[in-house]
Amino acid sequence: MSRTDAGLKVYGMSTSGNCHKVKLLLQQLGARYEWHEVDSADGQTRTAAFLALNPNGKVPVLQRNDGRVLTESNAILYWLAEGTPFLPADGWQRAQALSWMFFEQYSHEPYVAVARFISGWTPMDSPRRAELPRLRERADDALAVMERHLQAQAWFTGSDYGIADIALFAYTAVAGDGGIRLSLYPAVERWLQAVREQPAFVAMPLPDAQVQARFSASV
Amino acid sequence: MSRTDAGLKVYGMSTSGNCHKVKLLLQQLGARYEWHEVDSADGQTRTAAFLALNPNGKVPVLQRNDGRVLTESNAILYWLAEGTPFLPADGWQRAQALSWMFFEQYSHEPYVAVARFISGWTPMDSPRRAELPRLRERADDALAVMERHLQAQAWFTGSDYGIADIALFAYTAVAGDGGIRLSLYPAVERWLQAVREQPAFVAMPLPDAQVQARFSASV
Repeated sequence: MSRTDAGLKVYGMSTSGNCHKVKLLLQQLGARYEWHEVDSADGQTRTAAFLALNPNGKVPVLQRNDGRVLTESNAILYWLAEGTPFLPADGWQRAQALSWMFFEQYSHEPYVAVARFISGWTPMDSPRRAELPRLRERADDALAVMERHLQAQAWFTGSDYGIADIALFAYTAVAGDGGIRLSLYPAVERWLQAVREQPAFVAMPLPDAQVQARFSASV
Repeated sequence: MSRTDAGLKVYGMSTSGNCHKVKLLLQQLGARYEWHEVDSADGQTRTAAFLALNPNGKVPVLQRNDGRVLTESNAILYWLAEGTPFLPADGWQRAQALSWMFFEQYSHEPYVAVARFISGWTPMDSPRRAELPRLRERADDALAVMERHLQAQAWFTGSDYGIADIALFAYTAVAGDGGIRLSLYPAVERWLQAVREQPAFVAMPLPDAQVQARFSASV
């Protein structure tokens, strides 16, 4: 029995890259699952009911039909992908995929995703907007590391497309929303397009019009 | 052949928790390895030679005798531990261990470790010290999540001590250096002691006297 036969529920916010990662892999695995929309920008991850599910108050959360819960987007990707072509069987390659996923959460997401969040989900006069120049600078550092890798190799998960690509794709694809110029990174842009051309690819939905207007006004 | 028979080199800074994780596991595996000291607080991770090893400019780095390199402390722990008692054989438990390791890098280390770094490695008049109150607040959030888990369970890796415990131990054990009050978290303190009592445990060395004096002056 496959891991995706377990009556999976995902609690997630559709316009969050961390949540979209899980949706993208589930679609590409051909899995059946229930999606429960949780708007973390509206405080829905801080309710007592949600904190009972994940005491760390973050989406996504994966829940099995026996009630057991798994948190952290990249741990969810790993569990879903183990034993499938989305994660190499070779231990060293699996560790390299994990290395890129830890890079994503430590050196990439806190800049690329946070610049996007501040640009789109805070008022135009928010004091947090003062953080944007520094966040964009650190985002550029992360993109330069990715560019260097992609000048020599096609994918991040090993010889084939897989979960490290999915993890890095989610926020890189929408980095422009946070005012980061992807055109400076041609190998990254080629790789983004190659991900979009994978079977059963699904794009992240656009946020609402107000958020989109703030993106445009922030760059 | 065990993975630790591969003539391993570690490039690390002995007083960094991320590096100490790797040393602690290698000691507990009974592995032979070479340790190459790299002082990241002194710019040694930004040299051309080091960036050729890890373009992301961070320690620790694991290198095999064939030259192949693995970065990111928790990916290194995972690779070293796979197939040993430090990582469960059960896939769901392995994913839970990974979940705690991603929690460590995203919700714990950027607060607990950075509060310690600013307290000890920046001048007493550094403007970065203005970040300390907020960092300590977020560190408290992370410790509260750990406390809640440890009130019900002995370890983070599953039913036994393992790499998620090592990953979380490294900076939690020295959280006081950054002005975080561990005495508020009795279950965390019991768990820290239980880790210290594991066979072949090795403590992180103390930083130099100037750094220690700054810790004392920062709380």
